[in-house]
Amino acid sequence: MDITALREAHPEHWKTAAAIRALALDAVAAAKSGHSGMPMGMADVATVLFGKHLKFAPKQPHWPDRDRFILSNGHGSMLLYSVLHLTGYEQASLEELKNFRQWGYRTAGHPEYEEMEGVEATTGPLGQGISMSVGFAIAEEHLRARFGPKVMDHRTWVFAGDGCLMEGVSHEACALAGMQQLGHLTVFFDDNRITIDGTTDLADKTNQIERFEAYGWHTQSIDGHDPEAIDAAIEAAKADPRPSFIACRTHIALGHKAQDTAKGHGALTDMEQLQAAKDAYGWTGGPFEVPDDVKKTWEGFGERGTQAHAEWHERLQALSDSRRKEVERIFHGEPPKALAGRIRALKKQAVEAGHEVATRKSSEMVLEVVNPAMKETIGGSADLTGSNNTLTSDLGVFDPSNRKGRYIHYGVREHGMAAAMNGMALHGGVRPYGGTFMCFTDYARGAMRLSSLMGVPVVYVMTHDSIGLGEDGPTHQPIEHMAMLRATPGLLTFRPADTVETAEAWEIALNQKSTPSVLALSRQNLPPVRKTHSNKNLVAQGAYVLVDTDRKREVILMASGSEVAVALAARDILEGAGIGTRVVSVPSMELFRQQEERYRKRVLPSGPVRIAIEAGVRQPWDWLLLGERGREAKAGFVGMDRFGASAPAEVLYEKFGITGEAAAAKARELLG
Amino acid sequence: MDITALREAHPEHWKTAAAIRALALDAVAAAKSGHSGMPMGMADVATVLFGKHLKFAPKQPHWPDRDRFILSNGHGSMLLYSVLHLTGYEQASLEELKNFRQWGYRTAGHPEYEEMEGVEATTGPLGQGISMSVGFAIAEEHLRARFGPKVMDHRTWVFAGDGCLMEGVSHEACALAGMQQLGHLTVFFDDNRITIDGTTDLADKTNQIERFEAYGWHTQSIDGHDPEAIDAAIEAAKADPRPSFIACRTHIALGHKAQDTAKGHGALTDMEQLQAAKDAYGWTGGPFEVPDDVKKTWEGFGERGTQAHAEWHERLQALSDSRRKEVERIFHGEPPKALAGRIRALKKQAVEAGHEVATRKSSEMVLEVVNPAMKETIGGSADLTGSNNTLTSDLGVFDPSNRKGRYIHYGVREHGMAAAMNGMALHGGVRPYGGTFMCFTDYARGAMRLSSLMGVPVVYVMTHDSIGLGEDGPTHQPIEHMAMLRATPGLLTFRPADTVETAEAWEIALNQKSTPSVLALSRQNLPPVRKTHSNKNLVAQGAYVLVDTDRKREVILMASGSEVAVALAARDILEGAGIGTRVVSVPSMELFRQQEERYRKRVLPSGPVRIAIEAGVRQPWDWLLLGERGREAKAGFVGMDRFGASAPAEVLYEKFGITGEAAAAKARELLG
Repeated sequence: MDITALREAHPEHWKTAAAIRALALDAVAAAKSGHSGMPMGMADVATVLFGKHLKFAPKQPHWPDRDRFILSNGHGSMLLYSVLHLTGYEQASLEELKNFRQWGYRTAGHPEYEEMEGVEATTGPLGQGISMSVGFAIAEEHLRARFGPKVMDHRTWVFAGDGCLMEGVSHEACALAGMQQLGHLTVFFDDNRITIDGTTDLADKTNQIERFEAYGWHTQSIDGHDPEAIDAAIEAAKADPRPSFIACRTHIALGHKAQDTAKGHGALTDMEQLQAAKDAYGWTGGPFEVPDDVKKTWEGFGERGTQAHAEWHERLQALSDSRRKEVERIFHGEPPKALAGRIRALKKQAVEAGHEVATRKSSEMVLEVVNPAMKETIGGSADLTGSNNTLTSDLGVFDPSNRKGRYIHYGVREHGMAAAMNGMALHGGVRPYGGTFMCFTDYARGAMRLSSLMGVPVVYVMTHDSIGLGEDGPTHQPIEHMAMLRATPGLLTFRPADTVETAEAWEIALNQKSTPSVLALSRQNLPPVRKTHSNKNLVAQGAYVLVDTDRKREVILMASGSEVAVALAARDILEGAGIGTRVVSVPSMELFRQQEERYRKRVLPSGPVRIAIEAGVRQPWDWLLLGERGREAKAGFVGMDRFGASAPAEVLYEKFGITGEAAAAKARELLG
Repeated sequence: MDITALREAHPEHWKTAAAIRALALDAVAAAKSGHSGMPMGMADVATVLFGKHLKFAPKQPHWPDRDRFILSNGHGSMLLYSVLHLTGYEQASLEELKNFRQWGYRTAGHPEYEEMEGVEATTGPLGQGISMSVGFAIAEEHLRARFGPKVMDHRTWVFAGDGCLMEGVSHEACALAGMQQLGHLTVFFDDNRITIDGTTDLADKTNQIERFEAYGWHTQSIDGHDPEAIDAAIEAAKADPRPSFIACRTHIALGHKAQDTAKGHGALTDMEQLQAAKDAYGWTGGPFEVPDDVKKTWEGFGERGTQAHAEWHERLQALSDSRRKEVERIFHGEPPKALAGRIRALKKQAVEAGHEVATRKSSEMVLEVVNPAMKETIGGSADLTGSNNTLTSDLGVFDPSNRKGRYIHYGVREHGMAAAMNGMALHGGVRPYGGTFMCFTDYARGAMRLSSLMGVPVVYVMTHDSIGLGEDGPTHQPIEHMAMLRATPGLLTFRPADTVETAEAWEIALNQKSTPSVLALSRQNLPPVRKTHSNKNLVAQGAYVLVDTDRKREVILMASGSEVAVALAARDILEGAGIGTRVVSVPSMELFRQQEERYRKRVLPSGPVRIAIEAGVRQPWDWLLLGERGREAKAGFVGMDRFGASAPAEVLYEKFGITGEAAAAKARELLG
């Protein structure tokens, strides 16, 4: 690569872009870890994008109508931190850059959402950023249709590498984006032909242009170091109604000895080679030094959006009061005032009706009252709409012909759905929920972990939550999934037992601002367990006494979801034998854990034998069975310790011994 | 669709294919659940494939050189069961078909590996079958190169639907197949344009032909109901050196009222409509009745391979003794006799050297002695070769120019890698292991669950197994992953503490025939904890006393992997304060669970305070802390209850309080 020729062809651009390269080199060298090569390769594209096109205002980092920039190849975090620093984001101080990857600083190894303003999403697990961007673009399309372009009219820009494109989730999300014709989405592919193991063709010879054309995208191939070509490609992308894919031929670690090698992908810490690269750039500043004129140029980029923001603010103020308040409410993530009353009314109705209902159906009943009052919900399913019961009558389908639609047919794409929902929630102004079979949390797991890590209030509607699914067999029967979800920090899980608990779980989930929720719902009909109406949301306590005993309390049965009915049956048997038995419903372990110790002791006093019943593995129940510090009780578990089988649900419960009889027998055995 | 025209165009073929359609209709109607439409749509392709091309012998279902048929759209299981029944597989009896989806029968809702001979893989979770097939084809290519085409020369055939193609894992695996030019792999795409939610274009408009061309596949589009076109396409696929993708335009639920509708995807149980479809087919048999001539035709197909099998058997016998025995050994999954001695020698060396080594590096040391003695291993990594330490000096890289290579650069494709490894293990004759960062078990989870469910001895080499990963930050730091893996039935997990434990873990993993293993390995260097050599494999007990006390035993510290050193540090502090302390190393909870109660009680007697230390969530430790039945001990945990952070590893351990001091303090607090 002839660096001199590049410098001379566009001297002003070159100097500006070199600031990114120099800062990335300095920060990685200081940290002695990280990835220098990607920022050095993509600096030119970033400079043209931030310099001429991106609509952003560093002093207004939360401006709802800003463009979003997503660094999907998040290991190149120093590119983002550099640009945020240079353009004037307060949280991206020089001090931060100097302490890249250190404890207590915002400059984490990979960009972390909410650690630093301007970081729109946590990225690093490859493929997630590009897939979330599809959700950003969906949110923007929908809100533009809802409120008009004066309120919402911006773009989503993505940097993605070979890794992002190899990951399966990018296939799911990008095929969806093509079908949905998300014209405000542009992906820059960092086509540097280098991966960690060596040249990309060691593992991949995909023609990415043909691939994205097959999805229905607008595609271009350009020289990623030619600012004029980059600018022209961006203009062409803007002019096309399809999502745009721009393959940018770049050189990783441009100008460094490690250029175009796998070594260039990692941390370039040799100080002599580092200096040689800076010399080649014509960069004279010392470590972390940016010449005044270059800094001024970047600050000018940062000021470009100030006017646009002011104009937008004026337009917002010119809206009718109710309309403006609605925009503000949905971007603050506040549920509407009407929600609580509607949930209460539904609970009352459900108690009065007393029907046997599958909780997936209960969930639909809740959504039927929620969605008309909460216009920011966007529902969907990974091709299981009729099974997940996620589509309500008023939503309409979101597609290119109906941007006001609020229901998305995600296709058979659980991971892509989860990532897109993350993107929507990050964008704000919409509240996504989406369904699949609980077993396919396996597929969505990569994005679900990010929901939890970022703290975005996505709601996962996971139906068919146990062997109660029946004949579809062990491939489709969750066993270990509640354990997996409950082990995940920052995630709220709910396994409601009937319609009332389902309504309460939804109410809690829809009130979250920074926590994702999973609703584990039954395929099979369940008898109502809440027989009297209470205005209070009992699920909010995580676990509560559902039925107590008049006798001496010898046994406490704990259960969640469909097994609460099993616990009630066991109680009947035990009480019939004169054994005093309490039943505790445990819809949400995380919420129970958050209760005061006094409350927890009241629900689960020491002494009585404890039996937990759940059609899944025992692992998450041990702390409730045995107490945080042990010695609290004799304890037993009725559940699964193997995969399921294919047969009708009631047969499986019988064969696997998850019955009132079995639970009662276990209690008696422990009573001795 | 003009059924009459179809019937008349190819009357013999039609009658033969109609048997699949009739049996599928009957079985689903009897079960009142399942999927009728797919078998009805793909019956013609199946008939031509099994009738003219597939190399199989129902009486020799385990013949190593048979062709493999994978039903990736596994919900159409009745197609497979029908064909296996018709061609004469013993386990696919009429009785089985009549009890489709019932308890105690082999005809599960989705095909389950080892439930029925002829079912080559468990499928149903969409995308897995097509992705496993890539592993089947890799195994065949490699073994053909190793032993020559007289021993190994067969093909892998796959049926896949829209759902399989939408799933991300199919992207990962099929792009790899294209790069690898797996010419013996053919995929028939059931292009029926219907999904559960409705027409496919609700969610997808991908041009699949263009997509597979972008991957480098040979592609064709045909009428999936025209037997001549099907036959010609198969011939063309065979003649081409690339993997082949044949888009078969079909009609779901052909000839039924529900044809070409989403309803046709599910269970067609209306008996009147069912009869009307049979009438349209010209099918006169009652439920589960197959006319003799049709049965005879199918049995003829089943006999086609008998001769080929006999010839193969003769060729096998003609091999040299050692060569034949090697083929037999690797297909029986027996490790070579040399393995045990080599592992022992390495253990001895490691104890003598006493080096601080990261267990990922220990793993490489093990592989360096294993791979030359165990020629059936096929290693790989999802583009983290240098980090996972999975490539040893003797392997060579498997690619189109070197089929004898035993190392696969999987690319950034964790899910595809796991699925391909499942396929290789199912094929037999090879023993796959593959690496990625432990955190990306999230991505591979869908296939890892199938490893466990099918019981295939894949080895997952998961490095960077905790906050010990350091600066890459919380996106890359496993917290809940050991919980998730330990909760999964049928999976062996190992978290070894040093080189000796790593060698023992590998030895156990390589001796498995029907259990997958996960090795959780550290990024950071660890001090040796096993200071004296023992021929015995202590990891095989799951947990064991590493160091005991001469004092009265007041505290038991339990730990795994990198935290065993932390436990030893805590013991020093406690013993220094006169508190008798035992340290128990827990490399494998599953193996400890399998020990006799007597042994378990000896390792963990009641009485002493128990502290567990692991840089992950507490959930999987509770049963060890508290005892299966509670009341055993006061207990505490030192570990993680939140996501990690980006900083050097030693800083993170300090900040999150996973230190000897913290563990010692916790023990004292509980001692009161």
